[in-house]
Amino acid sequence: MAVNEDDTEKLISAILSARRVFFVGVGRVMLSLKSVAKRLAHLGIECHIVGEITEPAIGCEDVLIAASGSGESLVPKEIAKKAKSIGAKVIMIGSNRESTLAKIADFMVRVPTNTKMKCADEIPSKQIMTSLFEQFLLLYGDIIARIIVTRNNIDIESLWDCHANLE
Amino acid sequence: MAVNEDDTEKLISAILSARRVFFVGVGRVMLSLKSVAKRLAHLGIECHIVGEITEPAIGCEDVLIAASGSGESLVPKEIAKKAKSIGAKVIMIGSNRESTLAKIADFMVRVPTNTKMKCADEIPSKQIMTSLFEQFLLLYGDIIARIIVTRNNIDIESLWDCHANLE
Amino acid sequence: MAVNEDDTEKLISAILSARRVFFVGVGRVMLSLKSVAKRLAHLGIECHIVGEITEPAIGCEDVLIAASGSGESLVPKEIAKKAKSIGAKVIMIGSNRESTLAKIADFMVRVPTNTKMKCADEIPSKQIMTSLFEQFLLLYGDIIARIIVTRNNIDIESLWDCHANLE
Amino acid sequence: MAVNEDDTEKLISAILSARRVFFVGVGRVMLSLKSVAKRLAHLGIECHIVGEITEPAIGCEDVLIAASGSGESLVPKEIAKKAKSIGAKVIMIGSNRESTLAKIADFMVRVPTNTKMKCADEIPSKQIMTSLFEQFLLLYGDIIARIIVTRNNIDIESLWDCHANLE
Repeated sequence: MAVNEDDTEKLISAILSARRVFFVGVGRVMLSLKSVAKRLAHLGIECHIVGEITEPAIGCEDVLIAASGSGESLVPKEIAKKAKSIGAKVIMIGSNRESTLAKIADFMVRVPTNTKMKCADEIPSKQIMTSLFEQFLLLYGDIIARIIVTRNNIDIESLWDCHANLE
Repeated sequence: MAVNEDDTEKLISAILSARRVFFVGVGRVMLSLKSVAKRLAHLGIECHIVGEITEPAIGCEDVLIAASGSGESLVPKEIAKKAKSIGAKVIMIGSNRESTLAKIADFMVRVPTNTKMKCADEIPSKQIMTSLFEQFLLLYGDIIARIIVTRNNIDIESLWDCHANLE
Repeated sequence: MAVNEDDTEKLISAILSARRVFFVGVGRVMLSLKSVAKRLAHLGIECHIVGEITEPAIGCEDVLIAASGSGESLVPKEIAKKAKSIGAKVIMIGSNRESTLAKIADFMVRVPTNTKMKCADEIPSKQIMTSLFEQFLLLYGDIIARIIVTRNNIDIESLWDCHANLE
Repeated sequence: MAVNEDDTEKLISAILSARRVFFVGVGRVMLSLKSVAKRLAHLGIECHIVGEITEPAIGCEDVLIAASGSGESLVPKEIAKKAKSIGAKVIMIGSNRESTLAKIADFMVRVPTNTKMKCADEIPSKQIMTSLFEQFLLLYGDIIARIIVTRNNIDIESLWDCHANLE
């Protein structure tokens, strides 16, 4: 799927230079973000899901990744406003350039999937609702994790050592 | 990825004929299962995640889908044993045919991804840990949802009507 | 703790006459609400947590219970507005009568605990942050469940039959 | 409720000397534990819920608090065995001294509430199912937090500074 390579580079460098990375989304989008957060945490990046039990305060050295295809989902939009007002960097992953969330965000990783808002250039999908966007998020997050592993020369086998062992 | 077509048909028919479908897994596997459960719930299938707040009792008209690559994850294995003893049908989605979970399950949807157990025929993956299996689960679940939509002639646009609207 | 008896009666009758009861809150408040929802579900009341995987659409026969001491927590406030606009009944449980949430709600169950907003008549508490409010919610919800059991002559022993059995 | 004072002292000192404190339980018990973990985290104690997205590996400097009235709940019992085998300290909070969990645990905080197992000395309760135990856990956890605040001279007002601010 056509995601701008520069956007991906900007996203990776924002993740690597942040003190903490926060994630917000709703429904299946949130589930994909949780998988991504879990994988990045294995690589030593401090990740938090907005609303989780042990969420700390966000600050100006932190990044909020807000994912919403339409950019109009209530919770991500309101949380992004709040994060912005506190001084955190806000990155949107979504489709709709004209959305409220796009206007709040410092920058946007644009994904041309279909949304409830029907953007002009969206990729036609036979899939149910916004499935394509949710699948994209998981795969894109795992690709970013893979790039970080390669660049930082992380030994994949050693990752099992700090993986949760009570399961 | 090479999943046996007969296994997929057996899985679809088990889902459609069950009173309720329960899902169990751990970590990112659980997150993929939750996305799948949410999508199937949109199609009118009663789905429950083991451990969720509103989980009802499982009975003999019900199905438990237990996903674990290695088939040795503690929680899915123990929950599968319990479900089996109550009389529910147990379906494993995973890689390891020799596992405890495979022996408990009524049948297994075999996925040749890599696991901590290193099966002989597994697909080599450059991905981190068991990412491939977790991605597979989300995509496979969405494919199954798509097949059900087509076979049952469900109007996708109408699905938005019963979708959560408080978000 | 001094909660108006009429408010409690209005709350019980709203719960019993609703098609579905939705709950929204944040942090520890949400955890107490989840416990309450789980207990009421055991009594046969259809309960949903806003944001949970299997949340259905809210409608005008439904009730949203929004708990927030200050009545200014972002998510409960915004979700309450949305629910109201859809035609659902909104009930606030909280302390601050002058809050945005109090103005949105159809009625309010007033609890005189301390909040970040410092109401004039609040009960002084040596407890940490808003612990008293979160404890109140759990105990108050369990009292309401007990009242419903008595009034509807529910056999407590029989409740174990539909309790989750996969644990 | 009659909890042995020595048990409480041993619990507090185990929490304060651990590198990390892990919590495991099911259903409403888990919800009470999550509230307790969230409050202790505000006091600077590193807390993790077994099964949460960002759970790290447990080790021998860590403590697992496993709560189960009957001491026979499947998941806490199995997780406790695993934690013990890794070398972590295991503390049970529950009622049944003869349970599997009590035998695994390094020590037990005994609470004489009713359980499905019907202990001889249990406090008679008119409450539904094991509500009393779940209420106890929340209140007991908050009391422990209060004791830690007093002993360590923590300024309660300053706690809001590191409280989650995206809500």
